[in-house]
Amino acid sequence: MISEVKIFAPASVANVSCGFDVLGFCLDHVGDLIHVKMNEKPGVYIENIKGYDVPKNPLDNVACVAVDALLKSYSSKNGFSISIEKKIKPGSGIGSSAASSAGAVYAVNELLGRPFKREELLDFAMVGEALASGEYHADNLAPVLLGGFTLVRSINPIDIVSLPCPPELIATIIHPKIELKTIHSRAILKDDVSLKKAVLQLGNLGAFISALHTNDYDLMSRSLKDELIEPSRSILIPKFDEIKNGAINQGALGCGISGSGPSIFALSKGMLNAKKVGIAMAEPYKKLGLEYDLHISSINKKGIKIL
Amino acid sequence: MISEVKIFAPASVANVSCGFDVLGFCLDHVGDLIHVKMNEKPGVYIENIKGYDVPKNPLDNVACVAVDALLKSYSSKNGFSISIEKKIKPGSGIGSSAASSAGAVYAVNELLGRPFKREELLDFAMVGEALASGEYHADNLAPVLLGGFTLVRSINPIDIVSLPCPPELIATIIHPKIELKTIHSRAILKDDVSLKKAVLQLGNLGAFISALHTNDYDLMSRSLKDELIEPSRSILIPKFDEIKNGAINQGALGCGISGSGPSIFALSKGMLNAKKVGIAMAEPYKKLGLEYDLHISSINKKGIKIL
Repeated sequence: MISEVKIFAPASVANVSCGFDVLGFCLDHVGDLIHVKMNEKPGVYIENIKGYDVPKNPLDNVACVAVDALLKSYSSKNGFSISIEKKIKPGSGIGSSAASSAGAVYAVNELLGRPFKREELLDFAMVGEALASGEYHADNLAPVLLGGFTLVRSINPIDIVSLPCPPELIATIIHPKIELKTIHSRAILKDDVSLKKAVLQLGNLGAFISALHTNDYDLMSRSLKDELIEPSRSILIPKFDEIKNGAINQGALGCGISGSGPSIFALSKGMLNAKKVGIAMAEPYKKLGLEYDLHISSINKKGIKIL
Repeated sequence: MISEVKIFAPASVANVSCGFDVLGFCLDHVGDLIHVKMNEKPGVYIENIKGYDVPKNPLDNVACVAVDALLKSYSSKNGFSISIEKKIKPGSGIGSSAASSAGAVYAVNELLGRPFKREELLDFAMVGEALASGEYHADNLAPVLLGGFTLVRSINPIDIVSLPCPPELIATIIHPKIELKTIHSRAILKDDVSLKKAVLQLGNLGAFISALHTNDYDLMSRSLKDELIEPSRSILIPKFDEIKNGAINQGALGCGISGSGPSIFALSKGMLNAKKVGIAMAEPYKKLGLEYDLHISSINKKGIKIL
């Protein structure tokens, strides 16, 4: 029986303009490294945090509360110590809490001999998301655990649809180094939306999903719209309109807020386009002197992996 | 040059539970017969109406106003006389006005030597729909003109996605013989909906569209839900809950309001199931002594056809 495991828990982009709270995709290269050891001391605790700072108190740590939820469904006389090399900045909008929550439950599930399927781990990982954002949601967790593009049809009961991943799709992500907590960018949203805008969103999401199935990049481009959330949330992100226009002008298929921001994502056809788009997206922050990270990534079709 | 044409303009089911105002599919067998003659007397007029009664005054007739819209984009020195054998009852919820509007513009386009593609005819046919319901919408028109399942991504500009049609899908439609005008069943809807319910609808629509692409009947079944519109509209339809429960208990994949009602549709896997579902759906109206029509139909993949 293995007693420790190291995994890579990738970053992810949720919402993807047309799919608020339901659509997401998984990134390559960017992600947390999580090392979990099974030992004889019961309980779940943090052994070590490197990189970006996150709480070490298990009650405040998304990875610990997620693992604790798993252990309530599958009891073990063993305990688990978690070390995280936190490479995704919390509050950056690319699924920092999802990577830690999903990664930790994935690792513990491996150490326990895999009692749960990947999709079944979502219920536990969502407890981590609820701690981070105040709400249960799986739009980052699903692509992290299952890879590729995913659609959350329902979280209660959990029902995830794995979507096809067009081969030439490349993501460009810019992360301005300001922190925007999901809990705050959720607070800006109204409880109600106009039925007219909901209908527009239905049309765009439906078209985008069909386009993923048919590799129709033009239709993807026409569908990557968000009239529901972006107009109110984008005001929290410096230079959003300018960056979006820059990306579209350089040929991006679409561009919008990544998750709850402040990261901005674009999707492009091919690596060359994605790089040009990245240069355009960085320009406004360069001028402004605002620090940023820029990621250019293919879509990660596998999700979490054991190292 | 041909100077007259006869066409079959099929009935259709819009909304399909999870796709309010965007999703629709086309029926076989049920539909209007439209006969259009091109002649030297300018203008558009009704020569004859058989079957269900509709206005003969061109200004009040959806077919005439739709053709008139077409002729504003493609002028002709000729005129057109329209005869309709109206087999779809107006206000029944299976696209009566859509069949007449789309059918008439389709026929006139043929007589003019086909200056417009099928999809381009939607803009003209929508003028007929606006007369009937007070709003421009294409969720019935698109399946009538293009066949199969369609998604209306946008009506301005018009952007329709033709969706795949799983081979074993069969529709059962029950039409209680009460009239419910679209304009009235629209009036019951609120301008705003809760963001939570909109998100549920996004999840269901996205999953249903993915399921059409993958022939996943179980996922279709889980996705044929409507928390947005059905709860308020279904109170206008006698025995709705009982009929829906009957359909589901007999194995229907899903059941909901057809368009704006009062017709109720169910989708089943295979003809045998669809027939059993039909018997169950008719039961409450039989007991009540309420007259009804029952249609059992495969999905019409071609849409309008020339006879």
